[in-house]
Parts: sequence; structure tokens; C-alpha cells
Amino acid sequence: AMEEVRVKILFTSLCHTDVYFWEAKGQTPMFPRIFGHEAGGIVESVGEGVTELAPGDHVLPVFTGECKECPHCKSAESNMCDLLRINTDRGVMIGDGKSRFSIDGKPIYHFVGTSTFSEYTVMHVGCVAKINPEAPLDKVCVLSCGISTGLGASINVAKPPKGSTVAIFGLGAVGLAAAEGARIAGASRIIGVDLNASRFEEARKFGCTEFVNPKDHTKPVQQVLAEMTNGGVDRSVECTGNVNAMIQAFECVHDGWGVAVLVGVPHKDAEFKTHPMNFLNERTLKGTFFGNFKPRTDLPNVVEMYMRKELEVEKFITHSVPFSEINKAFDLMAKGEGIRCIIRMEN
Amino acid sequence: AMEEVRVKILFTSLCHTDVYFWEAKGQTPMFPRIFGHEAGGIVESVGEGVTELAPGDHVLPVFTGECKECPHCKSAESNMCDLLRINTDRGVMIGDGKSRFSIDGKPIYHFVGTSTFSEYTVMHVGCVAKINPEAPLDKVCVLSCGISTGLGASINVAKPPKGSTVAIFGLGAVGLAAAEGARIAGASRIIGVDLNASRFEEARKFGCTEFVNPKDHTKPVQQVLAEMTNGGVDRSVECTGNVNAMIQAFECVHDGWGVAVLVGVPHKDAEFKTHPMNFLNERTLKGTFFGNFKPRTDLPNVVEMYMRKELEVEKFITHSVPFSEINKAFDLMAKGEGIRCIIRMEN
Repeated sequence: AMEEVRVKILFTSLCHTDVYFWEAKGQTPMFPRIFGHEAGGIVESVGEGVTELAPGDHVLPVFTGECKECPHCKSAESNMCDLLRINTDRGVMIGDGKSRFSIDGKPIYHFVGTSTFSEYTVMHVGCVAKINPEAPLDKVCVLSCGISTGLGASINVAKPPKGSTVAIFGLGAVGLAAAEGARIAGASRIIGVDLNASRFEEARKFGCTEFVNPKDHTKPVQQVLAEMTNGGVDRSVECTGNVNAMIQAFECVHDGWGVAVLVGVPHKDAEFKTHPMNFLNERTLKGTFFGNFKPRTDLPNVVEMYMRKELEVEKFITHSVPFSEINKAFDLMAKGEGIRCIIRMEN
Repeated sequence: AMEEVRVKILFTSLCHTDVYFWEAKGQTPMFPRIFGHEAGGIVESVGEGVTELAPGDHVLPVFTGECKECPHCKSAESNMCDLLRINTDRGVMIGDGKSRFSIDGKPIYHFVGTSTFSEYTVMHVGCVAKINPEAPLDKVCVLSCGISTGLGASINVAKPPKGSTVAIFGLGAVGLAAAEGARIAGASRIIGVDLNASRFEEARKFGCTEFVNPKDHTKPVQQVLAEMTNGGVDRSVECTGNVNAMIQAFECVHDGWGVAVLVGVPHKDAEFKTHPMNFLNERTLKGTFFGNFKPRTDLPNVVEMYMRKELEVEKFITHSVPFSEINKAFDLMAKGEGIRCIIRMEN
């Protein structure tokens, strides 16, 4: 249909967001629906009005879009498109309010405009990033969500100066990508903070130079970090979504110049609390969504960072299964094993 | 003494901070002491080790300093000097821990390193900004505290883009200076927010184009501002120190790109609270101290802004009294009349 693109999905992977909405706890349930949003594929056909994409183009589906017309898309600072911003409650196409999937004549709902756990899917053109056809889709597919989110939080938002010290709260895929971003930006000390000590060894591959497990300390972790860094870290990136970690990530940055960036999505009843003097002492707190990348404009450049070997993607991919074994990817995530599991649609 | 400067004060003015510490509510009282920190004067003599100043230099005393050696002074982003940062509890010189004032052989304490309600005062060289001798001291004296604080909050920290919309919370001297800064930066809508409707007419002189009195609305002021501005202001500057105004100033900025800047000093038991999604939606909150100006490096340039007629100072000066009538300045402030009252030391 108008402004829509049908994409043959070749590789997809599982992200916590899929599991969160699959569990449907505390949300409006919408079933049946096809999950999946981290993926890579090839355009099969395009609808009316689509001029920037053609069959055969290699693309990454994105859970949030870029219409290129709204105030957010026209602002250099925002990627929160008014039209195509993530919407977890809309299970249908934005154009006609209908689904493009059905079974026995009954609709199957879409998920965040992507629904990549499917051999073919239909997306709004604003949610499809055209990338270099030389890029291996079985690798760069992971750039369509979590890895770019963490990477962008560091390189686009925290912007650690060369030689600076960065704390990363939460060493899951997003946090490791934030560490990778801090490494790329030239930070010299990257301190990983996680309650799970088993993550520490792996985090070294992503640039982490030091580790703090809050469980090992009786003092608040803000104070532990301040003591390690002569008054506070230069930048921090919060990737857990836990509101206490958010407060810690803010309060651990140095006065005068420290910047804390929030990435993890909080509980709906969470409340961020701090003494306002922590701000007055020249600290900055900002949040980011999808690493401040504009999906269509910026994702092709993230793929190029990989092609130029500035960004390492392979180390995020720890497992691979055929689509028929997708439940293994769910099991791995439930056990907290590995980082990303690629799901191969064709074999 | 070493690294100290004796300055003949020609003009000084009264700032809320003087009154706050004079009242000595909820602080460690330290009396007798000489208040005053917003002033202009001429160097009378310099101590050992002072190479950047000589007798006859025109100077502005500053309540916070710049040692030029510490990590803060060496950082391009901070003005919170480790050595000379404001200290309201130290009533003595930092070099030898003694006072330079006495009466009948008993010490009179200093105030924030300046004590400008005196014909002569002694300051650490790091708290003395040398300015253009052509600049009229009876005007530029007001640039040594509140006016620069508000101005810098806008031009150095909020940095409103040309054509943007800015909300200013609190239309006292600092807030009016923040409005003036927004005007200079090229903001096209400047919305003043104050509970005192009588301030609104005067605020127009400082660039305010619209006014909101929260008392006139039953909705939260965040919502009023969002409705006036298609989703939120681009920048806000909070100049009251009231924690509820801080929360409003943060929550009223537009998602995607809004930046809120905190200037007003909060109560010691205040707690800043908001839902963390307000950050995740790409809002930024930062605080500033003395408008992020480095006292010795940057104040001379603020004076030059005035000399080039980019910054209007005269409109901040509503009254003038001889030193013998300094109590009139206290009365005016208590009544909330006028903006700045110049206190003339010589006649």
C-alpha cells in the first residue's frame, strides 16, 4: 500500500523488548501478534509513493521511524518523529489502520511497525533504513536496535572527551555497546557497573577497563566511583532502567562538567529523585532514545562504521539458530547467557 | 599579603545573598562581618606574587574565584574552582586564615572573599577581575554577580537557538538578566513566569514577549506552557530556587530537544522529583553556577559586551544611594521594589 514496503527478512535477533511485550505484564495485551524488531532483510516490493527504496535494496527495519517532515525530523537534535515514533500499542499499519498479516481470515497484529519474526513483513517506508549492500546482513542486523542504542548514547549524547573516564551502568547488550562507544570516542577509563559479576570478564572485550559490583561495597556506589576517580566520572551511561541506578549514574558524575545519560526504560511508576544542588553544581542529566540516531539518515552511517572496522559487531553475536529453533533464543535470554542470538530465517 | 589585592571600592550594590546571610537563618552565624559582593573598584596595592594586577587597575570583585591551576579552572566546561569556589562559611583570608578587618583590635569577618560594603577591602587575586578602565564602574559593578549569573545561564548554558522559545521562571534581577541573555541569543518568544503580576510590565524591557502567572491557571504551569508552544518551550531557565518551579521548568521543555537550566539556589532539604521518562524523551536538565563564567577569564568580556552595547546594563539599575543610606537598599529589596540599587561609597 501507499508508503509501504514489503521486506524479505533474512536475519533477526531477540531483544528484551520482544520478551517484555510477549510476557504482556502490565500492558494492554494484543494477540495474536508477530514480534521481532532487530533484523536485516531485502526489499521485495514497494507501494505507491515510495521513491527512496526499490526491490533488492538491503535494509534494516527500525522500531521507530523518520518521516522527514515533522518538527522532530527537521530538528538536528531529535529523533523522536511525531508520526512514526515507537508505538507499542498500535498493532496495525498507520496508513489504513489494518494489519497486513492474517491467519484463516483473521488478522494477526504487528509489533512496533516491524514484526520481523516472519519470512516477509510490511513496514512503513519511514521505518526502513537502506544500507550498504556489501554489509553482511547476518552481522549488521543487530545494529537495528540495542547495539545502536548503546553506541549512540555514548558517541552522540554522552560524547566523552578523549582521555576521559566513563561509567557504564548495566553490562547487557546495550551497556556493552555504550562501552564500545566510549572506547571508540577515546575514553581512557571505562568502568562497568553491574550486580552480576559474571559479566565482567566479557565486558573487557568492549573496552571496560575496571569493574564495580555494588554488592561488594557497603558505601553507595556513587561514593565508590567518586573515590576511584578523584571526585566523579566525566560521563555515565545508565542502561538498566532501574531508577536507583539512574540516580546513582547521575550522582556519580563529577561536578563542574559531568554528564549522565539515561538509556534504560524505567518502570511506569518510577520516580527520579535527587537534591537539586547536584544539578546546581554543574552536572547535566539527559535521556536518549535509540541513541539519538535518526533511523533512515543515520543508521546507514553506523553500518559504514562497521565496514571501516571502527565498530566491532561480531563480538556482540554469541549464538545463532535457525528460525525453527527460535525458542532457544528465548531460553538464552531468560538465562542471561550470551549477548545476541541471530535467528536465521532461511536455514 | 601573598597573592592578595587591596581594592578601593567605588560602587557596590545589594544582592539577595547578602540579605540571606545577614539574616543568618539556618546557617552558622559569623558576626561581626562585612557583607557586600557586587561591586566595582580600583586596585590600591598588591601583595607579593601578584603579577596580573597593579595599582590603578579597574576591577570587579567576585564572590567565587579562579585560581587557573586546578582541574576545574583547566576544564573548559567548569568555573567551580577547587581553591576559590564560593565559601560562605569562611570569614577569613585563605592564605593565613586571618581577617584583614578589625575594630578595637578584634577581627571583623569577611564575606565570600569580597566584603565590598567597605571603602577598602582585601581579596585573593583569584577573586578579582581586571576590566576595561573605560567602563563606567557605577554601571558595570552590577555585572559582578546577579546580572552575569542570569546572562550566562542563557548565553553559556541554555544557548537558545535563533528564533527559539524560552521560558524564564522568576523575574527578579537574575531572571531578567536571563531574559536579556535569551534576547541577545536571538530567541523570538521569551515567556516570563512569575507569581507577582507587577513584574510583568518591566520584564518587557528585558525581552519578555509573553507572561504567565501560575496563579491565573488551574492547570499545572508545565501544561499551560506546553499548550502555548505546541508541545513545550525550547529552553527554560529557573531563577527562583523553589524546587516546584525547578520541576515545572524541567517538565515544560519540549521533548526531543528541550533544555532546562537551573540557576536559583534550592533549600537545603529540597528534593527534585520527576518521572524518568521525562528525561528518556530527550530532555536535558543542567545547573549552572555564576552563569558558567570563569571570573577572571570571562568577566572582562562581559564588560566588553556592555561597551559594544550588545548588553544593556542601565535598565537593571533602578536606584542609587550614598553609602550612608545603605539601609534604603535593604528596604527596597525587602519591598521587592526596583532591581538594583547602586550604593556609592564616596558621596
